[in-house]
Amino acid sequence: MSEGFFDSRWVERPAHVAEAPDERLPLGFRASGVAAGIKPSGGLDLGLLVSDAPASVSAARFTRSGVLAAPVLVTQERCRLDAIRAVAANSGNANAATGRPGLDEAARMQGAAAMAAGAETERTAVASTGVIGVQLDGQAIVRGLLGASRELSPDGAPAFAEAIRTTDAFAKQATLDVELPSGTVRVCAQAKGAGMIQPSFATMLCFVQTDAHLEPETADLLLGVCVKRSFDRISVDGQLSTNDTALLLASGSSGVKVEPESEDELRLGEALDALLRQLALLIVRDGEGSKRIGRVVVRGGHQPGVEAVARAVANSPLVKTALHGGDPNWGRIAQAVGAALPGTAPLPLDIAIEGVQVCTAGMALPFDQDALNAAVTRDEVEYVIGLPGDGAETEVFFSDLGHEYVTINAEYTT
Amino acid sequence: MSEGFFDSRWVERPAHVAEAPDERLPLGFRASGVAAGIKPSGGLDLGLLVSDAPASVSAARFTRSGVLAAPVLVTQERCRLDAIRAVAANSGNANAATGRPGLDEAARMQGAAAMAAGAETERTAVASTGVIGVQLDGQAIVRGLLGASRELSPDGAPAFAEAIRTTDAFAKQATLDVELPSGTVRVCAQAKGAGMIQPSFATMLCFVQTDAHLEPETADLLLGVCVKRSFDRISVDGQLSTNDTALLLASGSSGVKVEPESEDELRLGEALDALLRQLALLIVRDGEGSKRIGRVVVRGGHQPGVEAVARAVANSPLVKTALHGGDPNWGRIAQAVGAALPGTAPLPLDIAIEGVQVCTAGMALPFDQDALNAAVTRDEVEYVIGLPGDGAETEVFFSDLGHEYVTINAEYTT
Repeated sequence: MSEGFFDSRWVERPAHVAEAPDERLPLGFRASGVAAGIKPSGGLDLGLLVSDAPASVSAARFTRSGVLAAPVLVTQERCRLDAIRAVAANSGNANAATGRPGLDEAARMQGAAAMAAGAETERTAVASTGVIGVQLDGQAIVRGLLGASRELSPDGAPAFAEAIRTTDAFAKQATLDVELPSGTVRVCAQAKGAGMIQPSFATMLCFVQTDAHLEPETADLLLGVCVKRSFDRISVDGQLSTNDTALLLASGSSGVKVEPESEDELRLGEALDALLRQLALLIVRDGEGSKRIGRVVVRGGHQPGVEAVARAVANSPLVKTALHGGDPNWGRIAQAVGAALPGTAPLPLDIAIEGVQVCTAGMALPFDQDALNAAVTRDEVEYVIGLPGDGAETEVFFSDLGHEYVTINAEYTT
Repeated sequence: MSEGFFDSRWVERPAHVAEAPDERLPLGFRASGVAAGIKPSGGLDLGLLVSDAPASVSAARFTRSGVLAAPVLVTQERCRLDAIRAVAANSGNANAATGRPGLDEAARMQGAAAMAAGAETERTAVASTGVIGVQLDGQAIVRGLLGASRELSPDGAPAFAEAIRTTDAFAKQATLDVELPSGTVRVCAQAKGAGMIQPSFATMLCFVQTDAHLEPETADLLLGVCVKRSFDRISVDGQLSTNDTALLLASGSSGVKVEPESEDELRLGEALDALLRQLALLIVRDGEGSKRIGRVVVRGGHQPGVEAVARAVANSPLVKTALHGGDPNWGRIAQAVGAALPGTAPLPLDIAIEGVQVCTAGMALPFDQDALNAAVTRDEVEYVIGLPGDGAETEVFFSDLGHEYVTINAEYTT
């Protein structure tokens, strides 16, 4: 990505945010990634992250699936979610639908990770991603964590990011320096996700670290708001995972104190917002064979209506294959909108694609077909849908649906 | 289909139902199909159907989309739905999202069809299928109906069935003789549908004719019940169409009277049920590149729960690509179930594939991988999901998701 990390037209880099000249973690943090033998490929598959600052605070968000993976249950139930300072995350196995033995393995992983990180067990979170319904090899995890412990380093972010990848075509991480009125802090994040993506609030896995000093309430507020505007607004395939986990850890080691409702908080929030939105877009762009990203903006009506319409469009295989084919077939958008709002006919629907109005008040308009054909073959395509009334608005970012998605998902057990 | 029309293990041919030795329409009916120039291919694209019996009765079901096609609006609003005796249906253009001009064209089509069929305008239904958002060429329709009028024949069912096809790989029709206690009646049907299929009650288009004598209330009851057990239970791509229409026309010309709540009604209902279920399965089988059909049965919990779970599984691109790939990846089923029932974790979920239990009470079970691998590469694959509690049950039939679906929908404007 030669344009740097912030390469989408839908995310603006705030002026006080700069990409760091190096990939060092924020002060107080160390990380590592090792090959524990969980992935058949033998690649990195186990990451360990720790804040050495005992005063660290944290915030967390999890999938709302009715089928929760064991690591999610263990972290939710046996962790002080506002005081996490160590995280172990593995790829290659989701430890989901694994019953009581799976819970035991997740608990064992938590215990071993606490040991490996030198952190309290109840301040150690675990996360897993990979195949569902296969027991996790706890022996391999424990052995791996021993190795991961030895490799913990302030420069360990890339290895950690690599270790949490599954079908991701590229690692998703950023290291930002954020100028706050009270001083400069660093914010790092590592995310993974490409398929089974329609988080209700978080992507598969995302870990954010900062050396800012935060109150736990501030961490929770910032993570909550930013996740709502990023991972909550994307879909690769409309599929909610069993394992989604987003964690923000703040070591406080920079000594820069971010007080609630201060200018510092606002600025840090802006940085986190841009960071998570760009990471979310990277996940969509990596959407298992995706070639093109769509953004659907829906305005008018009421909130449940715009949400249903945006999701229906973003998850329509007909819209997604048209996006893939570079086909401005807006009839499929009209279809998806109608399906999302049953019983409302006749609906005076407006549709614009890349600024070209193709449908007004439910009726096809003449438009420059060549210009629109060209516009929809760019990397990012924007659809704006107007419903009757006003007051509500939402957006969803989505990947296209092409042959590679089928190849990846029909030919491999992931 | 060498096995005959009833070739799915999920539909039993009732003993009193036989495939007819010829394709003649039931007594009183004539039909035709012509090339009106709507389809660029020049193929048959306009069908006309009429009952010559003035006492004909009918029943109808339509899509619930908020974006209703003009022919659906015209038929709903300007037709005596219990007394339809003529139908004009075109392919190649859905006449949807075409605004006021589209309504005018649909009305014009209705008028011309009434003339062509020699039927009353308010007893003439219209239906369209094809591309959305393009104005229908009314001149071509009127000219075409003139030709269709001349070709009306008791042997016109195959041409009519051909004329309503769009991306269908094969025509979907049947001619059945049904032995009732009061005499033998004939039941014919022509259906079309391959993509944009998740009817809320009916497939894209289905026209059923019988020469039984029915009360309008009986026609409505039979169509309603049978549609709920057939077209309402299928999904190709989870996409509700703007044009779905199902019509049952009864001419009464056989002289066989089917009284309400009689044995005749029961037997005719059984025939209609088997007919529509098999037609629905043909639509799924034709699901734009589909290689394999899945049936998901969900038991337990309550009705909204089993419905949500069945739809989530049937419409999951991950489940559908696994079905396509012949991969018994049940983790994706667990994921879809969890997503459909947020906040219910931990869910003691049971999953069986082709009779092999792979998950009990939320936990993976050991099973014979080779046997299951072989079972899921057959033409029809059955998934049974058990939720806690009992009292509710449903089923959805669904197609797989393969490269051809992407090719068809990414490369053509349909």
